Amino acid sequence: MTDDSTNTTPLVAGPALALTVAYDGADFSGFARQPSQRTVQGELEQALSIALRRPIEIVGAGRTDTGVHALGQVVSFPHDDIDLDERALLRSLNALVGDGISVREIRRARDGFSARFDAIRREYRYRIVAGPVPPLFLRQVAWWTPRRLDVDAVREGAAHLVGEHDFKSFCLTESAEGKRTSRRIDTVEVFEEEHLGERCLTVRVVGNAFLRSMVRVVVGTLVEVGAGRREPAWVAEALTACDRSAAGPTAPAQGLTFWRVDYREGVWL
Amino acid sequence: MTDDSTNTTPLVAGPALALTVAYDGADFSGFARQPSQRTVQGELEQALSIALRRPIEIVGAGRTDTGVHALGQVVSFPHDDIDLDERALLRSLNALVGDGISVREIRRARDGFSARFDAIRREYRYRIVAGPVPPLFLRQVAWWTPRRLDVDAVREGAAHLVGEHDFKSFCLTESAEGKRTSRRIDTVEVFEEEHLGERCLTVRVVGNAFLRSMVRVVVGTLVEVGAGRREPAWVAEALTACDRSAAGPTAPAQGLTFWRVDYREGVWL
Repeated sequence: MTDDSTNTTPLVAGPALALTVAYDGADFSGFARQPSQRTVQGELEQALSIALRRPIEIVGAGRTDTGVHALGQVVSFPHDDIDLDERALLRSLNALVGDGISVREIRRARDGFSARFDAIRREYRYRIVAGPVPPLFLRQVAWWTPRRLDVDAVREGAAHLVGEHDFKSFCLTESAEGKRTSRRIDTVEVFEEEHLGERCLTVRVVGNAFLRSMVRVVVGTLVEVGAGRREPAWVAEALTACDRSAAGPTAPAQGLTFWRVDYREGVWL
Repeated sequence: MTDDSTNTTPLVAGPALALTVAYDGADFSGFARQPSQRTVQGELEQALSIALRRPIEIVGAGRTDTGVHALGQVVSFPHDDIDLDERALLRSLNALVGDGISVREIRRARDGFSARFDAIRREYRYRIVAGPVPPLFLRQVAWWTPRRLDVDAVREGAAHLVGEHDFKSFCLTESAEGKRTSRRIDTVEVFEEEHLGERCLTVRVVGNAFLRSMVRVVVGTLVEVGAGRREPAWVAEALTACDRSAAGPTAPAQGLTFWRVDYREGVWL
């Protein structure tokens, strides 16, 4: 998942372009550029550099891990060409990027805009298919657990997470070393829905920012509660412990989608 | 698609088992068994033969073409073991079949039941993503056409198809040779919906039985109308022509899902 702490500010002047991007996590070695790996950042930077005929480096609102999907990832880079034809660029980019990635929208942003540092709210959704029948059309975008879950218990457990908390128990131990691990969760919603004819349980988490693997540990913990192996109050105990071993397992990446990023009003031109 | 004409009756005695099966069309060379190809029928027969320890031959409600998906395909075979544990069989089958196929339900049916010949209604759904942004999560289960469609025109064209008609213009020429090409369409519904965060236009077609490629030619024809290349009334002309060349192109297989099969009341034990 993401480590999108907001402790530094970029020194970038001039207007920027922001791209809303969807991708299939299975097709990439995560978001962040890495040598000789297919990554979302690498693929987008390559396509942008070709389309705009200059080297482009982008900043993403969240650095999703390998296997994590995105519907509404936002990336940005400084760009001051006022004659830009966004519709033509959208077409070019979608023709240039390979399978598994789709540029949904291009917006102009005000001077110094950063998709990462100007984000005020991030939303993730995690899909679970719980029951004896394995998912088919959702098999690559949901976590299948053959045991049925008690949805009320999941909701009761989830309620403990709302608010400003130290989420040290809910992130990758290495990534928490010496860092601020306090985050604010505004909403955790748990609901059943249907996609492509198949039912799933969706955990929707909205907050200011998220630690690495945080949503996946949240979901792994809630599934322990839903399966009846733990009481809902255990989620609160796990939070106060400030120790990764106090929370549940990390749910698999494939169930998670980086759904949406919100920015302050007035950032778009 | 299917050629599910109902001109012969099987000579099978004894009770039967019916399986509701979902599959990803991209993973198979169609439904019907073929030597040295991975087919849905072949895969299911192999899994059933292992699980039930005897050779099993199944009959499917519709013989979907290569690339066509199914959510609610129904297959059946004679089986009179009254001690059968359906839940255990469901688990075994889902463990035995490979990726891209999922057994959703197992039901016991009355003597002589055939998933094909006892079907009274079949439903297909076809998803179209129309617009400049290519689909991402729907890219394998929808047809992307960059041009926007006039939904009202599509609906107006679709209305001409409802009723009992000779659909000779709407099926693969070779498959129509010397066969009855009359079919009854009960419903053609055209609606926008959202799956996995992406919008699509869905064409839902319900009828007694369908000719080979029929739904795909219907959709290819309706998209000509929606894109403004033809008038809605052209659909009626295409029907009366009884000539494949009078209708539109065949829409790609990947947008089509064999959604559901209905049977007479009283067939289930």
